[in-house]
Amino acid sequence: MPDPSATGPTGPGGPAGGAPRRRPAQPPPAVATARRAVWRALAAPGGPQAGDLVLVACSGGADSLALAGAAAFVAPRSGLRIGGITVDHGLQDGSAERATAVAGTLRGLGLDPVEQVRVDVGSAGGPEGAARTARYAALDAAAERHGAAAVLLGHTRDDQAETVLLGLARGSGARSLSGMAPRIGRYLRPFLGLDRAAVRSACALMGLAAWDDPHNTDPAYARSRVRAAALPVLEDVLGPGIAKALARTADLLRDDAEALDAWAGRVETEVRGPEGGLDVGALEALPRAVRTRLLRRAALAAGCPAGALTAGHVAELDRLVTHWRGQAHVDLPGGMRGHRTGGMIAVTPSPR
Amino acid sequence: MPDPSATGPTGPGGPAGGAPRRRPAQPPPAVATARRAVWRALAAPGGPQAGDLVLVACSGGADSLALAGAAAFVAPRSGLRIGGITVDHGLQDGSAERATAVAGTLRGLGLDPVEQVRVDVGSAGGPEGAARTARYAALDAAAERHGAAAVLLGHTRDDQAETVLLGLARGSGARSLSGMAPRIGRYLRPFLGLDRAAVRSACALMGLAAWDDPHNTDPAYARSRVRAAALPVLEDVLGPGIAKALARTADLLRDDAEALDAWAGRVETEVRGPEGGLDVGALEALPRAVRTRLLRRAALAAGCPAGALTAGHVAELDRLVTHWRGQAHVDLPGGMRGHRTGGMIAVTPSPR
Repeated sequence: MPDPSATGPTGPGGPAGGAPRRRPAQPPPAVATARRAVWRALAAPGGPQAGDLVLVACSGGADSLALAGAAAFVAPRSGLRIGGITVDHGLQDGSAERATAVAGTLRGLGLDPVEQVRVDVGSAGGPEGAARTARYAALDAAAERHGAAAVLLGHTRDDQAETVLLGLARGSGARSLSGMAPRIGRYLRPFLGLDRAAVRSACALMGLAAWDDPHNTDPAYARSRVRAAALPVLEDVLGPGIAKALARTADLLRDDAEALDAWAGRVETEVRGPEGGLDVGALEALPRAVRTRLLRRAALAAGCPAGALTAGHVAELDRLVTHWRGQAHVDLPGGMRGHRTGGMIAVTPSPR
Repeated sequence: MPDPSATGPTGPGGPAGGAPRRRPAQPPPAVATARRAVWRALAAPGGPQAGDLVLVACSGGADSLALAGAAAFVAPRSGLRIGGITVDHGLQDGSAERATAVAGTLRGLGLDPVEQVRVDVGSAGGPEGAARTARYAALDAAAERHGAAAVLLGHTRDDQAETVLLGLARGSGARSLSGMAPRIGRYLRPFLGLDRAAVRSACALMGLAAWDDPHNTDPAYARSRVRAAALPVLEDVLGPGIAKALARTADLLRDDAEALDAWAGRVETEVRGPEGGLDVGALEALPRAVRTRLLRRAALAAGCPAGALTAGHVAELDRLVTHWRGQAHVDLPGGMRGHRTGGMIAVTPSPR
């Protein structure tokens, strides 16, 4: 499929003038870049096939609006159908009206179907986590309902850098530093390699009026603080390009995590005993990075909640292997404990 | 060997009073913690043996002075001889006099032998890199000269956190984020798990007068800027404990890097062809994290300078494997190029 993003009118709605044109006007570079990013994401192996429906998730912010604009241009030229969904989290006054306005904009871009979905945000996982959980549940449901082959998300490289910094604070290793994947399941993030300024510029050049979510600058949110305070200072201290460096770090560490998870998966059956415990001798022979992944998996499989199981817990489990002096057991979240019995490490419910 | 650090007088020079004592006074907690850290580092498997000489590298700053004080207490109780070395970088007025004063303090602590070594700092690798290179060369030479089994370095958890942030700016993955090892070759870093404030407090409680290196607060140095500006803002934005989280990240990523390097090392002979090139089919079958490590090794083995070979170069080499469309070659630093010929990836000198 030839890259259709390098030519064509600036706006997504068709030729800019009524006169017949031999050579379509070149779009501004920022618009061409945004379109090319969407085109590449859709054309990658394993992506949607001709005739498939692709949904754009759009908050009405500049990033996802630019995504909708670029996708409205690219999708039909790639033989795809393109729809949109906007999620009303119901967390701010006027959110329903704004969702209606965003849906109207998406329809104006030619997206079809377009849906606005109201969700109820719970409280589990903090305000940002709860909103994210509700949002992805709504996007998953919409994708199922419409039989969409892919859902496009507007995250940029700057979002990725923020995610890496937020992961750093957890201190739990490669997985928490590997940020967002450019592609996971049905979700594609075409703009993950583009910086936010370029994407916003593309949005403006497409003539789309974006909404600035006040939550994005509300210091009550860790991500807003990272954006407003941490990244500018790091840029200042470490030099320009820190967002790019953080995003590249995420890519590299995601590769590392995948390779090590694969290693752990491959040896798991050899290490696991008939009762489900892990054989100490087999664990000792593995590098610590693989051993701790197996111990973490065992704890999760036994029922420890993923969000509460820290690297510190796993390190304590590992001491049952490497620094065994007859410890009674290791307390784990979710009312579980890890112990070493008969040369096996097992995770079982704590007796009440 | 019983932990000798929990008891004994505060000062390193012997009993605090002349009267006979049945139960030695308990040292303040910070002093006990510092001693215990040194004791653990020296007692770890593979460490120095009874009668061996251990050298403390001491700048006269609070961290390495506390290290000297703790080692002066612990080493004789561990059957070890303890000496000291202070390096005069000749970069500041009065540095020779200060080195003499530090050497005097070390002798006063009972260290023997004590040596001050003047080094010439070059310019390769920037001011901080050049000073580091000269310093480690001097420490290596001193260790050889005196037949020392180990050299102790005073880096704390805060130094580790700074190192991780400086590595983040490079964006080159796990290896550059894995910070300093608690033990590498003859070097041990007993304080790497302790925070700087606790170590400084131990120094003061030992009655040792520390020197504050003005370079540590000079904003001309990236590390000083990270210390003065970046870490406090991250602490503010992401919450307390960021230094600890960064240090834990370093530990986890060091484990990951070791495991993946081991994997790459294990498959290298299978992947390498008779002419030294890497077989594309074999590379394709590996996870990207392992493949890129093999490509990096091949580039280094062919003569690309390690400091100039970026993750971006390696990613371009990887595209010869994964996105082959007949690219001519990939330019690499050191006048080298990578190319794909006959199903093999090779790195050879660029024709002049």
